[in-house]
Amino acid sequence: MRNAVDREIPERIGSREVRPFEGAFATSPKGTQKAARTMKHAPRDEDKVLPSIDAAIEACGLSDGATLSFHHSFRDGDRVINLVLEACAKRGLKGLRLFPTALFPAHKAVIDHIESGVVSRIEGSMNGPVGAFVSQGGKLAEPAVLRSHGGRWRAIEAGDVHIDVAFIAAPQADPYGNATGIRGKTPCGPIGFSAADALYADKTVVVTNDLVPYPVYPMEITQSCVDHLVVVDEIGDPENIASGTLQLTKSPTRLRIARLTAEAVMASERFVDGFSFQGGAGGISLAVTKYLGDAMEEAGIVGSFGMGGGTKLLVDLLHRGLIRTILDGQAFDLDAIASIREDAGHVMIDPGFYANYDSRGCATYQLDAAFLGATEVDLNFNVNVNTHSDGLLLHGIGGHQDVAAGAGMTLITVPTLRGRIPVIVDSVTTVTTPGETVDVIVTERGLAVNPRRDDLKARLVNAGLPVRPLEEIKAEAERLVQPIGKPVFGDEIIAAIEWRDGTVIDVVRKVEGWE
Amino acid sequence: MRNAVDREIPERIGSREVRPFEGAFATSPKGTQKAARTMKHAPRDEDKVLPSIDAAIEACGLSDGATLSFHHSFRDGDRVINLVLEACAKRGLKGLRLFPTALFPAHKAVIDHIESGVVSRIEGSMNGPVGAFVSQGGKLAEPAVLRSHGGRWRAIEAGDVHIDVAFIAAPQADPYGNATGIRGKTPCGPIGFSAADALYADKTVVVTNDLVPYPVYPMEITQSCVDHLVVVDEIGDPENIASGTLQLTKSPTRLRIARLTAEAVMASERFVDGFSFQGGAGGISLAVTKYLGDAMEEAGIVGSFGMGGGTKLLVDLLHRGLIRTILDGQAFDLDAIASIREDAGHVMIDPGFYANYDSRGCATYQLDAAFLGATEVDLNFNVNVNTHSDGLLLHGIGGHQDVAAGAGMTLITVPTLRGRIPVIVDSVTTVTTPGETVDVIVTERGLAVNPRRDDLKARLVNAGLPVRPLEEIKAEAERLVQPIGKPVFGDEIIAAIEWRDGTVIDVVRKVEGWE
Repeated sequence: MRNAVDREIPERIGSREVRPFEGAFATSPKGTQKAARTMKHAPRDEDKVLPSIDAAIEACGLSDGATLSFHHSFRDGDRVINLVLEACAKRGLKGLRLFPTALFPAHKAVIDHIESGVVSRIEGSMNGPVGAFVSQGGKLAEPAVLRSHGGRWRAIEAGDVHIDVAFIAAPQADPYGNATGIRGKTPCGPIGFSAADALYADKTVVVTNDLVPYPVYPMEITQSCVDHLVVVDEIGDPENIASGTLQLTKSPTRLRIARLTAEAVMASERFVDGFSFQGGAGGISLAVTKYLGDAMEEAGIVGSFGMGGGTKLLVDLLHRGLIRTILDGQAFDLDAIASIREDAGHVMIDPGFYANYDSRGCATYQLDAAFLGATEVDLNFNVNVNTHSDGLLLHGIGGHQDVAAGAGMTLITVPTLRGRIPVIVDSVTTVTTPGETVDVIVTERGLAVNPRRDDLKARLVNAGLPVRPLEEIKAEAERLVQPIGKPVFGDEIIAAIEWRDGTVIDVVRKVEGWE
Repeated sequence: MRNAVDREIPERIGSREVRPFEGAFATSPKGTQKAARTMKHAPRDEDKVLPSIDAAIEACGLSDGATLSFHHSFRDGDRVINLVLEACAKRGLKGLRLFPTALFPAHKAVIDHIESGVVSRIEGSMNGPVGAFVSQGGKLAEPAVLRSHGGRWRAIEAGDVHIDVAFIAAPQADPYGNATGIRGKTPCGPIGFSAADALYADKTVVVTNDLVPYPVYPMEITQSCVDHLVVVDEIGDPENIASGTLQLTKSPTRLRIARLTAEAVMASERFVDGFSFQGGAGGISLAVTKYLGDAMEEAGIVGSFGMGGGTKLLVDLLHRGLIRTILDGQAFDLDAIASIREDAGHVMIDPGFYANYDSRGCATYQLDAAFLGATEVDLNFNVNVNTHSDGLLLHGIGGHQDVAAGAGMTLITVPTLRGRIPVIVDSVTTVTTPGETVDVIVTERGLAVNPRRDDLKARLVNAGLPVRPLEEIKAEAERLVQPIGKPVFGDEIIAAIEWRDGTVIDVVRKVEGWE
């Protein structure tokens, strides 16, 4: 069947019955009730601390085929996923389903665990080597499933994914299970990504390298749901949280894109007192944030909130009084983490608050403007952030869908070329985010406004911005390079891309070669 | 049938099948799953603010027989319960079940609503006139149910009580439904008592007198579950939060009790670094807190946490560095509220964290010492805080059961006489808290130690404290007064007293007169 972004989607993917994507806000929740949480109980005197991850696996009764969940707040510095999988492998466990918020290059050992049969399914983002490996086809027992931050939370609450054991890396915890990511020896920032896991998993295990006396606060993860704790030497390397993303771009091309983006936001009717925005941690987004902050100061505008990933740049806006609050789901640098500890207005939020489709409201719906990157965009304004032009599944969705759908004005910031590869294409390799949620595509060669937004187009034109048809920008870029080879896809579906409501917006197929 | 505290309990109470009390930690949770929450959804653009409580009742589809919930953070200053019931009465609604955390004298209009049939059931504490009215018998369609703070949370999560509409008084809220009790025009302190209601109710309505721009923080109640908001002129009078409870006692008798209590705690093996305690807001408890703080300072002991209700006295200990944290579920004065806003170590907790039996741990289980009041105690160390010696149901349970069961050392602080009425009796009128959870009864005539705690008795004797048999203290007090008349009870059960695990520890019967 063809879904609402005209992608061919099978009626079943693996063991899953597919609901096709119908539109960004087209569906109602399935059913009238959320999943029921597992009943829990505690004796009055109980020692929850176990001597090893192996002991925790034993205590949880983890068995073949179980679903294990993890958060990614240590990003490419995480050690816990590897530790747990090593322990599972040693115990001879097979056929596990991994349900991480995201995998990074640090987790390339997952490939070995797939080859040895320890891991047979993955639902979660796969940044880098694991994604490339899975893209070869024939690796997993069922196609992978990728979800947005909000979509993952929704899936847990709706019962789409039942977690057997949640392993939660915690930079600080007390022996009763309260845990936080903003204190400890190696703070990583908010760990609320695991809050739904902790609530809904049959068993919840906190893994920490800093066990301190009761009570740890803030209680991002609470004693109420933690079954066991394990102390290890290292849970992650906070130096790797930033993963090199936190440099303001110095490229003149990208600075021009950032400048045009900021000017487009400033030209919109939303750039008034109470303005709110979200940028990512990429170089262009950081530059836009900086430009907008300066413009707010000049215009005397105080923003209601900036949304994170938290960065030093956002914290700077808070400290300068240019925004009243930061809503922060994950920290991209240590300045942001320090600010969460110190600034009452720097508020941690979890993905449910941020973007759960099946809730009475999402923080992303309150955004005036969002500026997001892309791997590819197409003439229907669809965006791909998952696959590269070589067809390989190399990135997760993150909050891309959630923010694009929510923001009053969504701007996709892309250079027209990356090396010799055009970024604007006829049809994106994979639809991550549908064009109906994208308002403007900003390139160094001008801005293209979605035809659904003639109101906005008029404002940008009036502001003297270089508004151009997307086709024209695309053609101009293509004239500068030779056509490149394209991937040849096989039939096998290696991953389903879920829209945030649980429908399937696209599938990723096995790469068989390149033409 | 007779339960584990030897009370006669019927097999059914109203429409409810009774599980009899088996012991403080004897039962396992019923079933393997908690109740499933109602699925919710939000359009992207939605105005949640409604013009009146009547409009909210309409929007929620509230109908005859529905269950309405409320919190008591404004205590005797609350206006919201009356406003909502007036609106229900005007709409001609009948047979409502009230599920407040507590009713106070301010809610005596509930009596009229019972007489007119608007309200026919109550599950929640009834402090004062409503309790006295219900005690006459024949007033409610089903016996009332009283639960502890933790027990109420458990009942919601376990599905024992399903809430149709939660009305949440919020001193500050934003138009998307985020709400807090610690900011606004009339802050009342934490409103986390309603957090389970907000999550599990079919519909959740925030009633505020201070609607401010998005985002309000801390988000004690979140946009994720709030369906509607209503702005009213007055939600409550913060002057009445304290309700006259916050005076340190000046009575020499009570000061002696407080002094003996503090000395007993200091003599226990638990009075070391990391010590934790909870006192209430009564005059004796406040004096004990003060004595203990001074003793900690002198001994160089730093406590891990003090548990609230938050008071200026606890805040003072935090500021003096004598305790590292305050875990605060409800504020008893404005100093406590200010401290929550300003002190990172003054942490708000909800009743689930505090004391939910069906969870992986309760904060009360981490308490070293607790000093609690009582209306009556008996020779089995059972405690009554619900009924007076006249048999009338005049008080709720609060956290009494939760704290007594949890604390390593539970001390009940009581004068032997109140006016001409002995406090130590053969058998308490109503068992609120079973003797097995009580370690010491402290009176001005000496301390009685529960025979289960010979270890503790030896320490107190060694410390030179006046340890005496409870029978002896009782007899000494009785010699000073004439025997008083006793209530004559009818057969009708007017209320069930739940233990925190959902079993029934006692029932309260209709008062027919006094002998």
